[in-house]
Amino acid sequence: MEVVEVLHMNKGAGETSYAKNSKVQSKIISITKTVTEEAIIELLCKNFPESMGIADLGCSSGPNTLTVISEIIDIIYSKCSNLGCPTPEFRICLNDLYSNDFNDVFGSLPAFYNKLKEEKGTDFGQCFITGVPGSFYGRLFPRKSMHFVHSSSSLHWLSQVPPGLDRKASTAINKGRIYISKTSPQSVLDSYMLQFQKDFSLFLKSRSHEIVPGGCMVLSFTGRKSMDPTAIESCHQWELLAQALMNMVPEGLIPEEKVDTFNAPYYGPCAEELELEVQKEGSFIMDRLEAFEIDWDGGVDMPNTINGTLSSGQRVAKTIRAVIESMLESHFGRDIMDDLFQRHADLVDKHLAKTRTKYTNLVIHLVRKG
Amino acid sequence: MEVVEVLHMNKGAGETSYAKNSKVQSKIISITKTVTEEAIIELLCKNFPESMGIADLGCSSGPNTLTVISEIIDIIYSKCSNLGCPTPEFRICLNDLYSNDFNDVFGSLPAFYNKLKEEKGTDFGQCFITGVPGSFYGRLFPRKSMHFVHSSSSLHWLSQVPPGLDRKASTAINKGRIYISKTSPQSVLDSYMLQFQKDFSLFLKSRSHEIVPGGCMVLSFTGRKSMDPTAIESCHQWELLAQALMNMVPEGLIPEEKVDTFNAPYYGPCAEELELEVQKEGSFIMDRLEAFEIDWDGGVDMPNTINGTLSSGQRVAKTIRAVIESMLESHFGRDIMDDLFQRHADLVDKHLAKTRTKYTNLVIHLVRKG
Repeated sequence: MEVVEVLHMNKGAGETSYAKNSKVQSKIISITKTVTEEAIIELLCKNFPESMGIADLGCSSGPNTLTVISEIIDIIYSKCSNLGCPTPEFRICLNDLYSNDFNDVFGSLPAFYNKLKEEKGTDFGQCFITGVPGSFYGRLFPRKSMHFVHSSSSLHWLSQVPPGLDRKASTAINKGRIYISKTSPQSVLDSYMLQFQKDFSLFLKSRSHEIVPGGCMVLSFTGRKSMDPTAIESCHQWELLAQALMNMVPEGLIPEEKVDTFNAPYYGPCAEELELEVQKEGSFIMDRLEAFEIDWDGGVDMPNTINGTLSSGQRVAKTIRAVIESMLESHFGRDIMDDLFQRHADLVDKHLAKTRTKYTNLVIHLVRKG
Repeated sequence: MEVVEVLHMNKGAGETSYAKNSKVQSKIISITKTVTEEAIIELLCKNFPESMGIADLGCSSGPNTLTVISEIIDIIYSKCSNLGCPTPEFRICLNDLYSNDFNDVFGSLPAFYNKLKEEKGTDFGQCFITGVPGSFYGRLFPRKSMHFVHSSSSLHWLSQVPPGLDRKASTAINKGRIYISKTSPQSVLDSYMLQFQKDFSLFLKSRSHEIVPGGCMVLSFTGRKSMDPTAIESCHQWELLAQALMNMVPEGLIPEEKVDTFNAPYYGPCAEELELEVQKEGSFIMDRLEAFEIDWDGGVDMPNTINGTLSSGQRVAKTIRAVIESMLESHFGRDIMDDLFQRHADLVDKHLAKTRTKYTNLVIHLVRKG
């Protein structure tokens, strides 16, 4: 399965849309803001560009898309005001897969530009926002055109399910798994690790052509603190989803082989794996790596317009659904989605009643060598 | 009325879509191909860039969008092959208004990139295609980033209906007009001419910042050979549409004041007006200006999947509907559209039975001064 074809956030503004269910990702953006801020300030102090290339990779569509851009602009504007110098020309590239809802993003740009003009006045320099569709596991931008590259909640998605996995994953020992787990054969673990290494290395190589010497990236994504790829922090969310799917098999709602042939194109790396790839690729220095935990429901209130307050499980299920429904739909069909995520929500509730498992998020600051 | 808000080609791939009804525009692209080719060859002979900025302004969505880009790439690729030198890095910007269907354009890019790779092989350099939403009557691109700017069938649209026109246009003498005509008061003609001058001048000024010295533009759009802005070649199409609208008034289908308050944000200039603005703005040299005529139905067959062969009038009405329906819908409502364009088709048939009126198209080649 090519994730490029089927992974996009739920479109529109409905109850299951990403726009309405992206508060966890929003919280992650706000937690990593300090790292973004310090990275940009450091960049501007070393070399102040007249024209500044900025990219957000995996921008999606919804409120978070322009929040990130707005924060980056604010940081630079405020630094320029302090220095008493004019803001650079902003060349801002919003990247996501071809299937992303760019129409929605572009539709909100007139209001964004108006707000910018009102808040920053006419002294503020030119700001050009463009849409750059394509996979970030490959070239996206012209040579040496970027100064600051940002990505949040995207790099844990692999370019594809590791090839040759379908058969391996459906061996008896791994039955009913949609991601790696304690019972996965070593070959499955190896395939996932290898795919991550290939993808992340290609990501770094691609960006190394595009980022000017001294330019930098701030990347945050789901990972793990443990060296063990089957650690609960990284896998248990998939485990519960797999359980929800498997519960539907005896009722005849899903054929068992459908579950056996579904694998998540996902990998949450640990610090050591990241450091190794950065070192091997060789174009970047890892200036900073931080890990932080975030509740599965983001620890935020998500108002429910239908039934009053939602349970944690329901909030978690909605957040996950908004991200991966397109992928599940293309494999299992649209009809089972409501049922599946209701079952998933119940399993999450039961689990959280026992253990307050959290996501581990990693944020790294990489500087392009001179 | 802000044309920016409501002018977009009919979306999707249905019977009234622009994708299915853009053969006239396709024919214009093919007629102007020689001018494009000669302009690019001249550009490459003067100064061969390592990285080449190319833009299509008013790219719309549908088959024409990537045809233009494909032709431009072919011209450069073939010239490079002749010279035995590698192709430059392509930075291709597709521009249209915020409401354009960029999702549709981006959805067709993976197939486009694959075709490029197959046809041109791995020697072919990097090609980055981005979407740049916004009005071309204003800045779109970073300073000195563009080498070749193309626009076809777009620049006859003004940025807005000339302000203050609504009242003037609804004076008795101009009743039932939606564009200028022989009976328009001089004040109406002046307002339209002034709006064209402002818009075209702002267009040139904006591009002058963006295009490198020696870079160029090939622009084609509907205009006229006559100095008289009320000449039939330029106005009669609107006249027939106005008649179709006015025919619906006595039947109570449209309130008369709705027709009185609708004005087309359109202006088809003549060579002299263009030359004057180019000279006044001062950044470009007009290297070439050519006029050619094109049948209202493009002189092309447009297969009808429902009723066999369409009349000329029906073909013309479909072509126009695909372009201006969004604008008419927002003013008159969606319900009358089928009826309106049926009436319009009949009037066009009657007119063409008497006189084979054609569109005048102008194509100009402008070179950025050094």
